Amino acid sequence: MKIMRTLEQLLTSIENHLAQTELPAEPELLYAPIAYSLSGGGKRLRPMLLLLAAELFGEEVPGALPAAAAVEVFHNFTLLHDDIMDNAAVRRGKPSVHAKWGPNVAILSGDAMLICAYRLLQGVPAGRLPQVLAVFNRMALEVCEGQQYDMDFERRLKVSVVEYMHMIELKTSVLLAGAVEIGALLGGASEEDCRRLRRFAVELGLAFQLQDDLLDSYGDERLGKAIGGDILEGKKTYLMITAMSRADEATREELRRTYADAALSDAEKIARVKAIYDRLDVPRLTEQQIGLRFERALAMLDGLSVDAARTQMLREYAAGLMGRKK
Amino acid sequence: MKIMRTLEQLLTSIENHLAQTELPAEPELLYAPIAYSLSGGGKRLRPMLLLLAAELFGEEVPGALPAAAAVEVFHNFTLLHDDIMDNAAVRRGKPSVHAKWGPNVAILSGDAMLICAYRLLQGVPAGRLPQVLAVFNRMALEVCEGQQYDMDFERRLKVSVVEYMHMIELKTSVLLAGAVEIGALLGGASEEDCRRLRRFAVELGLAFQLQDDLLDSYGDERLGKAIGGDILEGKKTYLMITAMSRADEATREELRRTYADAALSDAEKIARVKAIYDRLDVPRLTEQQIGLRFERALAMLDGLSVDAARTQMLREYAAGLMGRKK
Repeated sequence: MKIMRTLEQLLTSIENHLAQTELPAEPELLYAPIAYSLSGGGKRLRPMLLLLAAELFGEEVPGALPAAAAVEVFHNFTLLHDDIMDNAAVRRGKPSVHAKWGPNVAILSGDAMLICAYRLLQGVPAGRLPQVLAVFNRMALEVCEGQQYDMDFERRLKVSVVEYMHMIELKTSVLLAGAVEIGALLGGASEEDCRRLRRFAVELGLAFQLQDDLLDSYGDERLGKAIGGDILEGKKTYLMITAMSRADEATREELRRTYADAALSDAEKIARVKAIYDRLDVPRLTEQQIGLRFERALAMLDGLSVDAARTQMLREYAAGLMGRKK
Repeated sequence: MKIMRTLEQLLTSIENHLAQTELPAEPELLYAPIAYSLSGGGKRLRPMLLLLAAELFGEEVPGALPAAAAVEVFHNFTLLHDDIMDNAAVRRGKPSVHAKWGPNVAILSGDAMLICAYRLLQGVPAGRLPQVLAVFNRMALEVCEGQQYDMDFERRLKVSVVEYMHMIELKTSVLLAGAVEIGALLGGASEEDCRRLRRFAVELGLAFQLQDDLLDSYGDERLGKAIGGDILEGKKTYLMITAMSRADEATREELRRTYADAALSDAEKIARVKAIYDRLDVPRLTEQQIGLRFERALAMLDGLSVDAARTQMLREYAAGLMGRKK
């Protein structure tokens, strides 16, 4: 039996494939932002999941690397366009494409980037292409739906926990689920194994997004990031929505007043909102929900038709992602 | 021998296929602009060319209709995003998506529309999909390149005729060429026939675009459109670029001064610029170029390996498009 590649080797192969993506020099304002955006690094979470899913079923699965690159290019395309819509000036510590080149360049280079993602799918073996294209298309459209709901929610006064979970499932989980499903399809997985891997990724995506919400307000020594950004922006996160759903009318009013109080310093505002979260037991409930989702994700791997040993690397990767030891 | 479908029947089948495009009701702000944009009518030039190319080789070619719809959806996606970049408020006599719903909705629904175009390609027979996807991707990327050059040119003082022709080849011809090539591939055309049909479409696209430039300044009784819009906007058209390339320094200076003269009424400005065009023989040279391109386009059809009678409908359609009798 060949030895499975290490996580680091997989990551290197993704970076190499992305770096090889053929981009002409001209017109410069079309292609330079794509190269800039792809060189921004990041965890390469989605292509890693795709390769790990493919390698459950065989080593060096044909087409897995270009498909992994396609999913990563697609993800970076969504960030590029989201940054215009959210008017975000910074992405991964650097100016966003929108901030650096302006909205028109960001729109058009984003469009070209989406097309480049589809161009990478040309590397998928012909026999698998119809299925892979169908999964990719559905995934891509659902991610757009998630972004639209996210923007809709910003303008709404009240969003339920169920609506919020549906939105993050579309905005985050669907892309992870698409990635593992494409990996599994390329690996020749059965329908049942594909279904299980999708559910694994959906739950993992939810756990990941809720953890992101939690860390933004309660922090994590591993991140050098300022704490409380979501609170200052008045973002509807899992914490905020859970707090609103659990609070009595007086507490809801207190939350709203705290948000609107221009006399408060940033630090005071964050402290007061977190005091309300704590009073309503929100951090513990969020932790609980994260743990539940993560356990459900791992449980999905138990029923796969492959040797349990083969799932080890995917488990480790998922645990590492969540900052948990396995 | 089955009777070939009439142009009207082909158009009806395209409209029906587009109307059937599956669009969920929610999120409304994502999908309503797509339906709005597709219901705007237009000539359906690109899908018509795709079907006509396919039908050179056989009747009711499998996959031709979804591919034709894909090309039309792609074209409308480019208009939707172009209208944001050009800040255009009106499209086909109605408010543009950008004007009606704002830039964020236009960006995201445009993205979804591009994905919908790729989703329509799922209707292409599996055996042809790899080739069709490759042609579609290259075409889509080149159209983005054309749009970027167009925007680049706006900010440049001088653009040569060669550069202008290259830009409109990318922005207009490439999409027509992609459409006929996909049609031909689906019809099972030889490589040589594909190549000839591409060249037919490239030349036709150039003739069509130059005619568009000419009619904007010199009008046409069939169009209810105001004359001189390009002149008032200071657009770099074939007429303007040809005039600048033929003028001596004094005339160039006169053109520049006329453009910048705020004291002139619209009608005066148009009349003065056209007087310079006339003096430089620009309308006749443009007509000549249009005729040349159109003749070259038709000549490409002569060498096709199909029965000459089969090319008749494509010839008629091209002539109708250019307002010429065959």
